[in-house]
Amino acid sequence: MGTNDYILGIDIGGTNTVFGLVDGLGNIVNRGKLSTRNYSDFESLAFDLAAKIKALPLFSNLKAVGVGAPNGNFFSGSIDFAPNLNWGEHIRVNEILGKALSLPVVITNDANAAACGEKFYGGAIEMTDFVTITLGTGVGSGIYVNGNLLQGKHGFGGEFGHIIVEENGRLCGCGKRGCLETYTSVSGIIYTVKELISKGEKTVLVDDENLNGKKIEQAAISGDAVALKSFQITTEYLGKALANYVTIFDPEAIFLLGGLAQSGSLIFDNTKKVMEENLMKIFKNQVQILPSQLPDADAAILGAAAIAGEALNF
Amino acid sequence: MGTNDYILGIDIGGTNTVFGLVDGLGNIVNRGKLSTRNYSDFESLAFDLAAKIKALPLFSNLKAVGVGAPNGNFFSGSIDFAPNLNWGEHIRVNEILGKALSLPVVITNDANAAACGEKFYGGAIEMTDFVTITLGTGVGSGIYVNGNLLQGKHGFGGEFGHIIVEENGRLCGCGKRGCLETYTSVSGIIYTVKELISKGEKTVLVDDENLNGKKIEQAAISGDAVALKSFQITTEYLGKALANYVTIFDPEAIFLLGGLAQSGSLIFDNTKKVMEENLMKIFKNQVQILPSQLPDADAAILGAAAIAGEALNF
Repeated sequence: MGTNDYILGIDIGGTNTVFGLVDGLGNIVNRGKLSTRNYSDFESLAFDLAAKIKALPLFSNLKAVGVGAPNGNFFSGSIDFAPNLNWGEHIRVNEILGKALSLPVVITNDANAAACGEKFYGGAIEMTDFVTITLGTGVGSGIYVNGNLLQGKHGFGGEFGHIIVEENGRLCGCGKRGCLETYTSVSGIIYTVKELISKGEKTVLVDDENLNGKKIEQAAISGDAVALKSFQITTEYLGKALANYVTIFDPEAIFLLGGLAQSGSLIFDNTKKVMEENLMKIFKNQVQILPSQLPDADAAILGAAAIAGEALNF
Repeated sequence: MGTNDYILGIDIGGTNTVFGLVDGLGNIVNRGKLSTRNYSDFESLAFDLAAKIKALPLFSNLKAVGVGAPNGNFFSGSIDFAPNLNWGEHIRVNEILGKALSLPVVITNDANAAACGEKFYGGAIEMTDFVTITLGTGVGSGIYVNGNLLQGKHGFGGEFGHIIVEENGRLCGCGKRGCLETYTSVSGIIYTVKELISKGEKTVLVDDENLNGKKIEQAAISGDAVALKSFQITTEYLGKALANYVTIFDPEAIFLLGGLAQSGSLIFDNTKKVMEENLMKIFKNQVQILPSQLPDADAAILGAAAIAGEALNF
């Protein structure tokens, strides 16, 4: 990519759609925001988005558009069956945005976007084999193999949050039981705390609608036994799952991001310990577990821009 | 590759070393064999091998050499810590063979070689995302992602046989407990039968040193309850593991090969059923489970030759 070339990154979320113009070094030189919920169809959103973007002074330097969205599919160029967007089953993002902006558009899901962001602008610039795992409301993952993003045959690759880690375990939103994300997401750790409270274990935490990850973290830091145990259980599941991941992929590093990853050593230390305990000798002490190196506020836009960089070989 | 170009495939096993000259269509036009155990070091084997190969009339048409071997490492070009070869910890195969033959040599492990064989000459020619799983004495796997073999950062990728599928399960040769291969290899199903016998279940099978996969298969075909149950248990583990595999990789197909895969519907039917039961909706009925399409007697040589094809972009 030339030094005067820019990529537009668009992150479509259930609440807001944010965008930014990104230069080759990962600086966001211009940014904007629309309220996703104000639009009853994607065409109207695309129309307003295009108007804002075309008005930018650097519009003529734009080379491509990358879009990150829940359930964004690289191969179909659409958002398929997104539970938090009420615009129909298949939203033809590439076609509609491409027409509105007269630029090539590339889309993928937000978990893959996070991995692309890390590869292009974050901690994985020099890496060929790594994964980013987002421990948020759910668990998402984006996987690089041999320098390329793993999309899978149908564009659904990388659903690491939905590997089954507990036979007949917790019911997952996907319909299966015992998926990793039911234990290692923010929702998962809240569920764990509620279970421990229901068993009568003593804690400062209260089982009500205000219980959240931050409160559990705070309680753990002040030594609350239930909060500490909930992190123990979470990292036990995560460490074992990562050991299996390493056994298959032999990566250089694993990046943890999202809400739970903000809890720092409460998450990282025991996850690493459990992972190492469950590895074959050849894999031991080979794989780093790292926090994302992208600035939190910019991660979504940088990830979206990087999708286009990845697909178009910038 | 030109129509007059050939690749040499060499499969180094604990007992025999076999080789063949392979044309661009996967025909083996010449083949040979040495007894691995006759050689006390790899240099002597390489010397005899080179003499035989240089004597072949088509030697001048040879473009490259591919080597498949247990613990063969693509990146180091050597066989590292192979339990069945007594030639030291690191056998510098590429260097020694390359000098002896004055040709580029590429090595990888035999599980990866099987996947390369399927991609170049077998059932995966048109596929970009698939896995081959060898259900032999152990369980090996070779994985293609986006048209490329997954090697991993250190050349150890694809150790699918060593994902842990049972907490505190059977002790594995790798030192861990509950690895997939302790349940779904030939040794695994024998262990299952022995367990069932020790529980007093009635069967025509006898727990002695002659018990093998073929006998269990025959007993299952004639309706023996323990034999049938052992296949049931094996395919339960395999089907669940494959569901997790599909969830991460979103492949087009899974190829089963090796001893147990020869048992046909006893392995394939319930594995497929259990896999489908454990998949998210988006993955259901998308992935085929197939037998290898390579002729059994040629698979090792074709796989070895294909390694060079894969690495050198023939």
